[in-house]
Amino acid sequence: MPKTLISGKNIYYEVYGEGEPLVLLNGIMMSTLSWKAFINAFSKNNKLILIDFIDQGQSDKSEKLYTHDLHVETIKGLLDYLHIKKVHLAGVSYGAAVAMKFALSHQNRLLTLSLANATSYTTYMLKDIGQSWINASKTYDGATFFKATIPTIYSVKFYEKNIEWLRNREKLFSQVFTKEWYDGFIRLVKSAESLNITDELYKIKVPTMIIGSEYDLVTPIDYQQEIYNGIENSRFTIIKDAGHASMYEKPHEFISIITGFISTYNEKLKIL
Amino acid sequence: MPKTLISGKNIYYEVYGEGEPLVLLNGIMMSTLSWKAFINAFSKNNKLILIDFIDQGQSDKSEKLYTHDLHVETIKGLLDYLHIKKVHLAGVSYGAAVAMKFALSHQNRLLTLSLANATSYTTYMLKDIGQSWINASKTYDGATFFKATIPTIYSVKFYEKNIEWLRNREKLFSQVFTKEWYDGFIRLVKSAESLNITDELYKIKVPTMIIGSEYDLVTPIDYQQEIYNGIENSRFTIIKDAGHASMYEKPHEFISIITGFISTYNEKLKIL
Amino acid sequence: MPKTLISGKNIYYEVYGEGEPLVLLNGIMMSTLSWKAFINAFSKNNKLILIDFIDQGQSDKSEKLYTHDLHVETIKGLLDYLHIKKVHLAGVSYGAAVAMKFALSHQNRLLTLSLANATSYTTYMLKDIGQSWINASKTYDGATFFKATIPTIYSVKFYEKNIEWLRNREKLFSQVFTKEWYDGFIRLVKSAESLNITDELYKIKVPTMIIGSEYDLVTPIDYQQEIYNGIENSRFTIIKDAGHASMYEKPHEFISIITGFISTYNEKLKIL
Amino acid sequence: MPKTLISGKNIYYEVYGEGEPLVLLNGIMMSTLSWKAFINAFSKNNKLILIDFIDQGQSDKSEKLYTHDLHVETIKGLLDYLHIKKVHLAGVSYGAAVAMKFALSHQNRLLTLSLANATSYTTYMLKDIGQSWINASKTYDGATFFKATIPTIYSVKFYEKNIEWLRNREKLFSQVFTKEWYDGFIRLVKSAESLNITDELYKIKVPTMIIGSEYDLVTPIDYQQEIYNGIENSRFTIIKDAGHASMYEKPHEFISIITGFISTYNEKLKIL
Repeated sequence: MPKTLISGKNIYYEVYGEGEPLVLLNGIMMSTLSWKAFINAFSKNNKLILIDFIDQGQSDKSEKLYTHDLHVETIKGLLDYLHIKKVHLAGVSYGAAVAMKFALSHQNRLLTLSLANATSYTTYMLKDIGQSWINASKTYDGATFFKATIPTIYSVKFYEKNIEWLRNREKLFSQVFTKEWYDGFIRLVKSAESLNITDELYKIKVPTMIIGSEYDLVTPIDYQQEIYNGIENSRFTIIKDAGHASMYEKPHEFISIITGFISTYNEKLKIL
Repeated sequence: MPKTLISGKNIYYEVYGEGEPLVLLNGIMMSTLSWKAFINAFSKNNKLILIDFIDQGQSDKSEKLYTHDLHVETIKGLLDYLHIKKVHLAGVSYGAAVAMKFALSHQNRLLTLSLANATSYTTYMLKDIGQSWINASKTYDGATFFKATIPTIYSVKFYEKNIEWLRNREKLFSQVFTKEWYDGFIRLVKSAESLNITDELYKIKVPTMIIGSEYDLVTPIDYQQEIYNGIENSRFTIIKDAGHASMYEKPHEFISIITGFISTYNEKLKIL
Repeated sequence: MPKTLISGKNIYYEVYGEGEPLVLLNGIMMSTLSWKAFINAFSKNNKLILIDFIDQGQSDKSEKLYTHDLHVETIKGLLDYLHIKKVHLAGVSYGAAVAMKFALSHQNRLLTLSLANATSYTTYMLKDIGQSWINASKTYDGATFFKATIPTIYSVKFYEKNIEWLRNREKLFSQVFTKEWYDGFIRLVKSAESLNITDELYKIKVPTMIIGSEYDLVTPIDYQQEIYNGIENSRFTIIKDAGHASMYEKPHEFISIITGFISTYNEKLKIL
Repeated sequence: MPKTLISGKNIYYEVYGEGEPLVLLNGIMMSTLSWKAFINAFSKNNKLILIDFIDQGQSDKSEKLYTHDLHVETIKGLLDYLHIKKVHLAGVSYGAAVAMKFALSHQNRLLTLSLANATSYTTYMLKDIGQSWINASKTYDGATFFKATIPTIYSVKFYEKNIEWLRNREKLFSQVFTKEWYDGFIRLVKSAESLNITDELYKIKVPTMIIGSEYDLVTPIDYQQEIYNGIENSRFTIIKDAGHASMYEKPHEFISIITGFISTYNEKLKIL
């Protein structure tokens, strides 16, 4: 699969299918690999583009600290390189913050915006949680990292039901995550610390779908309510019975809402 | 637009577009006319079929009382008449109850089931609310009927924001609803009194999307939770900031979830 | 039990026990009689005062329309007559609105304020619900009135569990409610139509406890959130698993919160 | 203040006031010191007893691992020593679990039970969160411990509003918590790992008040719903706008509910 050089960094991306382009932006611990089960669904009617942010997956690592803006420029660079004018942009958690920042600086490149389990503001609480993740990362120990990050990512019901799968994930962490990966993860966490765009959201005018989860402990529904209040005419749906990682817990609901939204966003629905 | 004779009654229906068939079932006060704004969205990738139940819109009136089963046979009759084998069946409130009953008796005719603002059981509370609606109907007075039925149908926010539109609706009620209409409405209310299929829901095996509304006072989310508990692997989404009449309050969310679901229902999403 | 003449009307009231005075204000359908089961609990450490508003219970009827202000003056008159300087004032629903209006005009007479299932604003929705109650009242028929008013007053669970008790209440309505009662009830409903004190709530400085119910359909928790936002340092608790008539559904929770609050309201709790 | 020897360990306790005895049980990070601001309110009408569990505050440390049962015996020993037959028992989080275990083995010693922010079952998620707390404890570093434990303990709103107080707490952690303290904390966390009494709750017959918090991320309201389902005729209230540490965030609501409950628990409230 291809990489391209953007601002001096090799950026890994994948492209599938044909149709109005849809770019999916990873959550902070994810990579293009995380979307494997979703590729078929999202590329059936759209040209699906997956991308590893700098410090994620197969893209280059960074030598210094940055903010979400670095990824905004990566996305813009990739769209230019692929000669794509306008896209549906969908992001999960960290990726949703990048998506909003992209909308604020390159709105003319967007058809729609889909924001899952998002916040427009890194609260002190999120900053401190981030610091606890950094502290765990610095042990470079998979089990320590897992215990510090994963329990609040899922709903209780999911956690209880899938404890064996989670235990296997924990082992996988120890095998897969290298010192390099942890150092990249730390930079990603730090890049989110200064996020504070709540007061700018009113500038976003593209059709926007906001997705929350009933049991999201990391970014509870109140966070998305702020985004909903900020973006005019935004749409707001909740996935029942799911935690922060809604795409993993409730993949069918996740793809239903997003594929339905990007195929109907320009319908005139004159009810009143 | 066409009618056809089913079990001795003229049934009014409408057909639009091409693709996997999608049948939309009306709520109790609705008719095919209520879907006007949605026709384009739902017929873009599907053959859309709208239908007036007996005692609704342009279909014949009934001479006697009945249950949801009458409509189940109407739907089956129409599908046979149109030589349609399998459909996506989506229903709103009363229509969702009919959809579930259809699933229990003719599951082989279904691709999927979408249930918006539904209950699987007419509680004593709903029975008594129904009786208050019947009492108001028997005045044959539009304003009295409006005040007895509409205030709990919408969310407070919607009601406050759209009070002028609601006042116009109230006037419309007085102009449009005839004695015949009210008598039909009374029979429709009575037809729901005996509904009690919660314990049978486990028999439904087709992919099912359940849609609730945050501020549904008539069938609060707890009612749909019962359905979710009953139907294996059902999906469950909530439309934020909407009351019972979610399709009117939040039409974009409504069509996003349903069109997305019926276009992705058979995706294998192996996450775990 | 005693009555006294206030502004030319006989006002019925009851007094029990000794201690800091506590005045309980009735909901719209209630009377002093409704508090029978609560008298012991509320008079153990307090001088409990019950009162029938004009058009309620054994107080005189009104000849003309009025607003909550009429009851405010009734309460003030009674306190003056009884030579009581300061009271704990607690109100349920309609009575909570009267309590807030009393606080706005006679704050120096209050020790604390307890507001259960309250709204500070009669929304269009509540106005229309009120009109449907008036319409049902004008039939002077107990069963019609019951069906129009009671189903949304309780939680579904309570309604299902206590349907026999509710059926007995329905019969009682037919026996007890006279034409005079219904005409008084209509005036009470109309008296609430103009309520709109949300923007004045900031003036209330007495310790205030706000009580909502999880399943309140008439005045959902969002209404009390407005009051909480308006009254500085107000306290806010929710009774789980109860509808609008929280004092009937969950009497133990109701008395725990109120008696606990009025016995500890002046504690300095310096935590931070 | 006094200590007494129970099963070979010095147990620190404090006694204030006169009346029906009330024993308050600490949360896992707390000690008798944490109740300082509450002493006046809780001792006004009751003999208030505070106690440091083994491995808390000024009580002895343990040399080995244990379960909640160790504290149950400590409580019983103290009550015997003080010649107290029956008490109101109230616990917060970890202390609420101890309280339930006490009720299961020494129910005859209880007047009432108050359970704030409780769980009856240590889920895998809670176990893993506990392990992350243990991992942070083993660094013996106050800032690391703070970041790993505190952010999910409070509501977002509280955290944002009181960030300076929290930063001071963080510094305090570094000054106050010794290696001995952390080792005790680790044993306390481990003592909760095997908790699983959901199926035994039905045996608890004393009047019980359950208190949850709207924004409790550690033990969300669903956990208390299980307890409510299990204990017959238990009462259930929610403190709005608070996180897991409800007693710190909303002290007035906390004391209102508990003092009101223990002063009215034996009221017969015959409504139906």
